[in-house]
Amino acid sequence: MKPNDHVVLAYSGGVDTTACIPYLRQEMNCQFIVAMTADLGQGDELEPIRQKALQAGADIAVVVDAKDRFVREYGFPAVMANAMYDLQYPLSSALGRPLIGDLLVQTANEFGCGAVAHGCTGKGNDQIRMDLTVALLAPELKILAPAREWGFSRSETIAYSERFGISSHVTKEKPWAIDLNILGRNIEAGLIEDLQWEPTEEVWNLTSAIENTPSQPEYITIHFERGIPVALDGKKMSPLNLMEQLNTVGGRHGIGRVDMIENRVVGIKSRELYEVPGQQILIQAHRDLENLVLPPDLLTQKSALEITYSRMIYEGLWYSPLKLAIDAFILFTQQNVTGEIRLKLYKGNSKVVTRKAPKSMYRHELVTYDSNCTFNQSSAEGFIDIFSLPSRIWSRVNA
Amino acid sequence: MKPNDHVVLAYSGGVDTTACIPYLRQEMNCQFIVAMTADLGQGDELEPIRQKALQAGADIAVVVDAKDRFVREYGFPAVMANAMYDLQYPLSSALGRPLIGDLLVQTANEFGCGAVAHGCTGKGNDQIRMDLTVALLAPELKILAPAREWGFSRSETIAYSERFGISSHVTKEKPWAIDLNILGRNIEAGLIEDLQWEPTEEVWNLTSAIENTPSQPEYITIHFERGIPVALDGKKMSPLNLMEQLNTVGGRHGIGRVDMIENRVVGIKSRELYEVPGQQILIQAHRDLENLVLPPDLLTQKSALEITYSRMIYEGLWYSPLKLAIDAFILFTQQNVTGEIRLKLYKGNSKVVTRKAPKSMYRHELVTYDSNCTFNQSSAEGFIDIFSLPSRIWSRVNA
Amino acid sequence: MKPNDHVVLAYSGGVDTTACIPYLRQEMNCQFIVAMTADLGQGDELEPIRQKALQAGADIAVVVDAKDRFVREYGFPAVMANAMYDLQYPLSSALGRPLIGDLLVQTANEFGCGAVAHGCTGKGNDQIRMDLTVALLAPELKILAPAREWGFSRSETIAYSERFGISSHVTKEKPWAIDLNILGRNIEAGLIEDLQWEPTEEVWNLTSAIENTPSQPEYITIHFERGIPVALDGKKMSPLNLMEQLNTVGGRHGIGRVDMIENRVVGIKSRELYEVPGQQILIQAHRDLENLVLPPDLLTQKSALEITYSRMIYEGLWYSPLKLAIDAFILFTQQNVTGEIRLKLYKGNSKVVTRKAPKSMYRHELVTYDSNCTFNQSSAEGFIDIFSLPSRIWSRVNA
Amino acid sequence: MKPNDHVVLAYSGGVDTTACIPYLRQEMNCQFIVAMTADLGQGDELEPIRQKALQAGADIAVVVDAKDRFVREYGFPAVMANAMYDLQYPLSSALGRPLIGDLLVQTANEFGCGAVAHGCTGKGNDQIRMDLTVALLAPELKILAPAREWGFSRSETIAYSERFGISSHVTKEKPWAIDLNILGRNIEAGLIEDLQWEPTEEVWNLTSAIENTPSQPEYITIHFERGIPVALDGKKMSPLNLMEQLNTVGGRHGIGRVDMIENRVVGIKSRELYEVPGQQILIQAHRDLENLVLPPDLLTQKSALEITYSRMIYEGLWYSPLKLAIDAFILFTQQNVTGEIRLKLYKGNSKVVTRKAPKSMYRHELVTYDSNCTFNQSSAEGFIDIFSLPSRIWSRVNA
Repeated sequence: MKPNDHVVLAYSGGVDTTACIPYLRQEMNCQFIVAMTADLGQGDELEPIRQKALQAGADIAVVVDAKDRFVREYGFPAVMANAMYDLQYPLSSALGRPLIGDLLVQTANEFGCGAVAHGCTGKGNDQIRMDLTVALLAPELKILAPAREWGFSRSETIAYSERFGISSHVTKEKPWAIDLNILGRNIEAGLIEDLQWEPTEEVWNLTSAIENTPSQPEYITIHFERGIPVALDGKKMSPLNLMEQLNTVGGRHGIGRVDMIENRVVGIKSRELYEVPGQQILIQAHRDLENLVLPPDLLTQKSALEITYSRMIYEGLWYSPLKLAIDAFILFTQQNVTGEIRLKLYKGNSKVVTRKAPKSMYRHELVTYDSNCTFNQSSAEGFIDIFSLPSRIWSRVNA
Repeated sequence: MKPNDHVVLAYSGGVDTTACIPYLRQEMNCQFIVAMTADLGQGDELEPIRQKALQAGADIAVVVDAKDRFVREYGFPAVMANAMYDLQYPLSSALGRPLIGDLLVQTANEFGCGAVAHGCTGKGNDQIRMDLTVALLAPELKILAPAREWGFSRSETIAYSERFGISSHVTKEKPWAIDLNILGRNIEAGLIEDLQWEPTEEVWNLTSAIENTPSQPEYITIHFERGIPVALDGKKMSPLNLMEQLNTVGGRHGIGRVDMIENRVVGIKSRELYEVPGQQILIQAHRDLENLVLPPDLLTQKSALEITYSRMIYEGLWYSPLKLAIDAFILFTQQNVTGEIRLKLYKGNSKVVTRKAPKSMYRHELVTYDSNCTFNQSSAEGFIDIFSLPSRIWSRVNA
Repeated sequence: MKPNDHVVLAYSGGVDTTACIPYLRQEMNCQFIVAMTADLGQGDELEPIRQKALQAGADIAVVVDAKDRFVREYGFPAVMANAMYDLQYPLSSALGRPLIGDLLVQTANEFGCGAVAHGCTGKGNDQIRMDLTVALLAPELKILAPAREWGFSRSETIAYSERFGISSHVTKEKPWAIDLNILGRNIEAGLIEDLQWEPTEEVWNLTSAIENTPSQPEYITIHFERGIPVALDGKKMSPLNLMEQLNTVGGRHGIGRVDMIENRVVGIKSRELYEVPGQQILIQAHRDLENLVLPPDLLTQKSALEITYSRMIYEGLWYSPLKLAIDAFILFTQQNVTGEIRLKLYKGNSKVVTRKAPKSMYRHELVTYDSNCTFNQSSAEGFIDIFSLPSRIWSRVNA
Repeated sequence: MKPNDHVVLAYSGGVDTTACIPYLRQEMNCQFIVAMTADLGQGDELEPIRQKALQAGADIAVVVDAKDRFVREYGFPAVMANAMYDLQYPLSSALGRPLIGDLLVQTANEFGCGAVAHGCTGKGNDQIRMDLTVALLAPELKILAPAREWGFSRSETIAYSERFGISSHVTKEKPWAIDLNILGRNIEAGLIEDLQWEPTEEVWNLTSAIENTPSQPEYITIHFERGIPVALDGKKMSPLNLMEQLNTVGGRHGIGRVDMIENRVVGIKSRELYEVPGQQILIQAHRDLENLVLPPDLLTQKSALEITYSRMIYEGLWYSPLKLAIDAFILFTQQNVTGEIRLKLYKGNSKVVTRKAPKSMYRHELVTYDSNCTFNQSSAEGFIDIFSLPSRIWSRVNA
């Protein structure tokens, strides 16, 4: 049993998680604090963040580069599942939490800590995702959530930090909150809470305004092998590389902006903005390829499971047995999901224009109205006779 | 019992249904043939079509203006159901068939006919939709489908017609087939069967190429009452009028093009193109409004039923008892679906920018991070404690 | 705004709800306490219970006979939904809570109370059902749950009561807890928590041991009209009367015992015993009749909704908009659910032996292998040709 | 490409499949006929059947003992899936068809045949199951179904056979049709088609009339390992042996009779009787064990998939990719499904009385009302606060 007062904190370098360090020590009696910063592609310089943790009082501060693992083990499996919360949001932020949780647990094991901590508030989804990940991976660990209990306003948080010599020289703040990783960017709170406010261009960062996108379309071809994106325009590349490229090209053409009303796990509706060019394009292409190679009953059932699967990611159940069982289902379905999807990116639009797959179930000889069609039209009458039989019985009974 | 050799034919004026007239009389022993042409907004001049039917040998030819009824009784209920086949195709063609079927049955009653006929082939969905509609509405009627049994190629069809003095002065044909009504335009077959062929601009007709769309965005506001679109930009208008306006404005901005691989009822995959600006915008706006006013469990269940509902429309089951029972569910859910959705149309993109609803479940006072927030954060810990309990038990059992 | 310190308590006469009366006044500062006892057929004498409430300090004590309403408005709609939690438990206890909640709200309105109270603990389902009912019907009412917060053991509860002069002359207690109403009897806790313990006969009360059931079978016929049970053995009777009769006859033959592992809303598994002879027989008969009169796709969809519906009743969501929308679906489906189901009751078995329905979709002329069969066997080949087409394409692609 | 006029016939020895032999040769131009008889436990002596095939004109006649494989590869996976069509019928007959189909394909390969044949009629489910199995396993094989096309009545079939010297010395026939294998017995047609007829005892064969069952109950314990039944009353035994024992003991106590209205694949309702003691007991015990060891969300999702899975078995889709993907899901879920279920068999009743599982999620320390309970009741309030939040918002919005 590791000591409960030794804690690993998920540390981002922001005002909140920085204030957690003195709070954990002063108010929650932690004796030993490790700050763990995971690099999921948020684009910050990490050594200054590590230094900041130490200055704020962490005993140890570590940085973990998890970008490649993030795309490979979380982003791409989500592509295989066409994971879209409410058909719109590819779960970019949500997918990061089980990975951070996993790194917390690993770091706790490494440093002999019996507790983990995070800076999530009590109103969002992330607290649930973090807590559930730890519950599933290491239920023996205690979970501390200072920001859920301190009840500080933002200025109170800053004031509290300053009492411990933490200068927060806060730059002029954006009137909204941002969460960024390699799978996407989330913007929420502040001005965005006003449903009558149309987001201005300064809200967005990864994606160009349509006015500023190139005047010529760009074509890209994505190659999948067994459901996994492996090449772009004929060039094999690593998951991380592929994702970066797609974010760049998609963003350049203004693709991947989402503005939605979302149902949080804690029972409230919020308005969320997302920029998710790469993940959106990948799921679009993957789904299109599946339409080509999978039989209709399998597509229908997989779609239904995808809705559950997406909700489970949203709710932090990445490591739960149901989610893992659906993974087994999905993996089985991906055997034939190999092929090339070509898309036209232009002025905010991403459109599939051509498809190719060695195991395509689209058979030209069946569908064509040409003379060499092999579909047996005479079967149709018998088919309809039986397909409509319950309908005809029903109508007669009710005549 | 009306005589089986008196028949009402669904007549479009095209080569196939024209050839059906002599075929019904000569090969299928029909004594009395009524040609019924329904105007669903296909944009043809109808009196010449009526004349053509008579020239081809119909005893009677009638034209029914069903445009208003089509939008009101088929298009708008489909909007309430967010009906999208495979999340992409708003069923514009499919929705027309139960209406045509209903008009066939009515006309058969009017003229004392014991049979109805249509010109659908044995490989498509429309034969199934027509046959099922008739099975559900009037199972006692015989159904004749000349084009399903004659096995003619196109030139054979023309030759057959000419034997009966029907001149087909076919204009240079498009290398694809088209089906048009007020809800949308479908393009299929011919060149489109080649999955490696990117559709050229001449394929499209209702929607502008993005290159040709206005350089300025256009904002529109759609007002819904109990799920039904009732006004555009503050102006009340009839369903038909509203749909026409939305098609015009959406088409002008290049919105509503679909290029998809589709699973036909008869078990084959086909590639289909659609132009559906108005219906697509309406469903997008309606779904967004529902996100604002409906509780999350209801949204989840309604979405699941919508998939079934859409497939039933696709399969011709509009009048079936299951579809009608789902209608009862949907109607109940629409009580609060009143409000205004504002969209920005620009360069092929349609984006919801602001929302307003008197019964909105979005409560700013709960979601805000401002100091006047009424959400009780201290409940979160208890919630997560219990929400994660099965996960924690599972992990402990498996430790 | 009614005063928060005026409260209506759901009062059963038991040790817990009796202790609630002084607790509400002393520890929770209630100034005015109304004890409301609902008669759902629990078989207690109610005037002594009313007196006991007054002796314990209630300002007012009322008794409401809700037996008829319970069967008519809760039990029978659940039959129409074939509502079985986990396919086994017909929700007898769960169905009582929304009714009690509704009576609490009514009584609060009547006596100008701004709060309601119940004696449920924090570990069971009933607290959730009560709280959700009030949340849905009267969210402005404050909810007090003394037994959820006091943390008393049983003997502490008794001791607390005695401090206020409440004599609890507790009879020798059964080593388990019981909840009884006209729809069934629930036995839980105590010895039953030991999964290795086989319940002895003294646990059961409504149902005979098989050893003691009659040596001859008994036949009963239940008549349904539009899904509602209206007559038994040809005799029309009120819902309450019908339910009492079925409980008696079913219980006599040892029918309706359930011993199950159940998933509580609060995330734990418990073992629960139920005796539900009448409700189980009704659902069995109703489901069988539906099999006769409803088309297969409707049966499949209705079954899926029934699972959701049953879980919602279990979770206390009787008055929620999703549950009400499913009601609309179900009601629509019951139009043809009229007919007679005859069952043989014998030695714990209840078996449907014959069925009759004016709108039966079972058509002897279609199914029979007699020579006068009207089913067109030649359609089968065409049907299979198309039904198997995706399978054949799949296999060829993978050959 | 193997020759189409070389055929393997699924041969049962009955009147119909015997008549198929001359019919295949005379009317369907088969040059080489192999009769393949699979032993699935139908209890017939097989060498006389083999001889009969040769006498009827088969070139070769083979018998395959597939009993063990039937239980191991079809029966037990169906238990893991709790496969019950319409919650009642454990698919005993349906499960045999994919195995027979597989043996047909194997035999065709062995003897170089390009076609397979079966004696199913055009009105039942078995034709579809056979044809789909062959479509999925060997789409290149031609399928011949003489009995679907010959249109013979029973006496015509006998007369036709006699023309080829086949004596049918038909014993006095039962007024119904029977299909038997080790998983169960199906009785249909004839008298059973009369819904007003209560089956008499002579219909049943595997199960005792309740009147004749032992006067003392019998207890059995079934041991599962990872979802698979491996021992009975502590004795390890082979799948086949276990199934035989359970059929015997269950049948002795009158367990496993089913009388149901069923929806056939071909769109008609039929009445079917089944005797399935062993399979019914196994599924009951397996499901109960799953309730003990699986988390609630997994149980819910698995139940939903089981309905699809059962329908797919019913429809002959055992080898389809969707069914195989669901297998992957199910297999994953069975890791913890190890334990012992004890049942009491008595007078037609089979009741689970005690359960035990090393990975049980039932935690006495959480559920008990004893003083040593570890469930944190104070979490309940927070849980309900958030769980009820959408309901409260909804009510307030609608107040």
